[in-house]
Amino acid sequence: MTDLLITNARPMGGAKTDILIKNGRIAEMGENLTADGMAVEDAGGRIAIPGLVDAHTHLDKSLLGYPWYVNTVGPRLIDKIDNERAVKREYGLDAHVQSMRQSLQSVGYGTTLIRTHVDIDTDQGLIALEGVMETRRQLAGVVEIEIVAFPQSGLMRRPGTAELLDKAMQMGADLVGGLDPCGMDRDPKGHLDTIFAIAEKHGKGIDIHLHEGGELGAFSMEMIFERIRAMGMQGKVAVSHAFCLGLPDWNVSQALIDTCAELDIPIFTTAPPSREVPSLKRLHAAGVRFGAGVDGFRDTWGPYGNGDMLERAMLLGMKNNLRRDDELAMALDVCTTGGALAMDRSAHALEVGGRGDVVLVEGESVGEAIVTHQPRKLVVTAGNIVARDGASLRARP
Amino acid sequence: MTDLLITNARPMGGAKTDILIKNGRIAEMGENLTADGMAVEDAGGRIAIPGLVDAHTHLDKSLLGYPWYVNTVGPRLIDKIDNERAVKREYGLDAHVQSMRQSLQSVGYGTTLIRTHVDIDTDQGLIALEGVMETRRQLAGVVEIEIVAFPQSGLMRRPGTAELLDKAMQMGADLVGGLDPCGMDRDPKGHLDTIFAIAEKHGKGIDIHLHEGGELGAFSMEMIFERIRAMGMQGKVAVSHAFCLGLPDWNVSQALIDTCAELDIPIFTTAPPSREVPSLKRLHAAGVRFGAGVDGFRDTWGPYGNGDMLERAMLLGMKNNLRRDDELAMALDVCTTGGALAMDRSAHALEVGGRGDVVLVEGESVGEAIVTHQPRKLVVTAGNIVARDGASLRARP
Repeated sequence: MTDLLITNARPMGGAKTDILIKNGRIAEMGENLTADGMAVEDAGGRIAIPGLVDAHTHLDKSLLGYPWYVNTVGPRLIDKIDNERAVKREYGLDAHVQSMRQSLQSVGYGTTLIRTHVDIDTDQGLIALEGVMETRRQLAGVVEIEIVAFPQSGLMRRPGTAELLDKAMQMGADLVGGLDPCGMDRDPKGHLDTIFAIAEKHGKGIDIHLHEGGELGAFSMEMIFERIRAMGMQGKVAVSHAFCLGLPDWNVSQALIDTCAELDIPIFTTAPPSREVPSLKRLHAAGVRFGAGVDGFRDTWGPYGNGDMLERAMLLGMKNNLRRDDELAMALDVCTTGGALAMDRSAHALEVGGRGDVVLVEGESVGEAIVTHQPRKLVVTAGNIVARDGASLRARP
Repeated sequence: MTDLLITNARPMGGAKTDILIKNGRIAEMGENLTADGMAVEDAGGRIAIPGLVDAHTHLDKSLLGYPWYVNTVGPRLIDKIDNERAVKREYGLDAHVQSMRQSLQSVGYGTTLIRTHVDIDTDQGLIALEGVMETRRQLAGVVEIEIVAFPQSGLMRRPGTAELLDKAMQMGADLVGGLDPCGMDRDPKGHLDTIFAIAEKHGKGIDIHLHEGGELGAFSMEMIFERIRAMGMQGKVAVSHAFCLGLPDWNVSQALIDTCAELDIPIFTTAPPSREVPSLKRLHAAGVRFGAGVDGFRDTWGPYGNGDMLERAMLLGMKNNLRRDDELAMALDVCTTGGALAMDRSAHALEVGGRGDVVLVEGESVGEAIVTHQPRKLVVTAGNIVARDGASLRARP
């Protein structure tokens, strides 16, 4: 953590001000600040936003740095999962190298906080976790990485996976992951009981991938609610994707959303154009914590994406039909301060006492910055300059 | 129309070949072509695709070149329409200047064929049409522009509009437009009878904006079907947006799609992430002609978009959950050859006898070109080089 003075910045597109970062936090904001001997960056009137927060991705398995992956995979979820394990073996994919590549690309785009789901399965064991943990060590001070131990290939259907998840938590994973208790494991009780037990044992939280739509997703949500209530885990269990919250039947989906608020269940979206998704405005109105992420990209699952959370704010805005500038600001909040809050980080904001994470973006307004998502001029993590002109200062392996 | 030899290009990502354009059309494709005294461009192994086709936009009313428009507009369709007329007056918006700006920006992105809907209303009369027609004259040979006379502010609800549409067709508009016969005009019979009569009188086609969803949209589609049958206008009437074709009730939507095939009704989409849209695969399977467009952008309606049809191919792919490379090629087809066919242009393809419109794009594969949509290296319209490195050779006003 370093000290840094940023001059002539426009926080959130407002009036010009200087931002003084000391010991990794914002110490002062105002006009004509001075700081003897301190590094100074002139923002040149650019808009300053907080560090972008990628609250849902898969650092261990992008194919960045490899030739274009020609996708001929079948349509079912299990086709994609089985294909991925095969490709990993064929390529000898190194989770440390891939997570370094993706993390540094994201840093170039202004991301300073990442939650990543890391595959744990009986094929590869804990090697991906080790690789991503090594990346986390190497990039400390550059980007904060939070790790979910993720049973991508299933839990109950692959004996030995629960033990690996338990081991992953011992090794230092931050949260226990889960995946479609009905659709994937065909045993929602077994799946949820297992991951809640591991989380309780280690005193950690949970983040469950829930792609199940409609009434099936609603059923799985209810089983999650029951366990949160029974175990007193309010505020500790998040749901990613949660397509069922976008169920057109308002009565059903609103009851689910209200219960997410009551049990303080953070929701993470990747705003896919092709699916029904949780509505930003409805979650906001209900007071549900809400973050967004780029999901996996340039991998065996699909070709889209690049790690840019400012572009994701645009996609989130398009998906939610946000057109007004005040609505675009809400989309950016989900991708910065709000997303951090959904990850239990408060004060991830441009305010005195806030984290010293600042990104200088191009555009007359926050709206234009989101819509055009031009290369970031400067990225600062806890007072350290980590990227300039769209590229991380540290070279990608 | 000029002659041009492009060497070392990879049509649609295939093997390297040379492309010889004579008199505006592709005369020969093969290895080691020579052409004495002819201009030569080395593609350097880049992928060549046909000219991009923007089959649905609004050239007359983007705010390109103006400061960022801070959007505070209300949520209803009529709020947006009324606000737009007010802003046009306030800005003194010049449809010729705005359409030059947008067209040249699109040319920089590789678009060589555009269908634009131009506002005709009792406030501004035919001035926008005159402006866009002047742009069409000035950009002849650079980009082909087809004009729909569009009653944006309503037809039956604003007496005098029908006469203006009739006049617009006399002046040289190519098609008669329409808009939400129920939702906007509250008189579907009056609206449709009027535009079909104008089209019949001038021997021209029709392109109707249909935002109406669900059963309401299905009802308007049926009224359109009835008139096509009665007047024998098969192949002459297109529907833009057509959200109702994405109605979840498969029986209803499939019957609509099948009738679009039977009556040869081209469908144009902008692939909005926030709406139910016609499915690319379902239209393809039914044999419905299908094009895509960027819609209006950077205007009083909303902030998104930039005119890039390669990015639109990505959004179309994301909206339709296309992940395989063969599926991405389908998305590109809709934005090139297929879109041109939906506009009644055959041979808009990289083949001998095809239009001499060629765009050199970056990427190992067509999929990568779509997903990363990097600046176009070269854009050629009917053998003329019209853009390089992402920018039109003609300066924007």
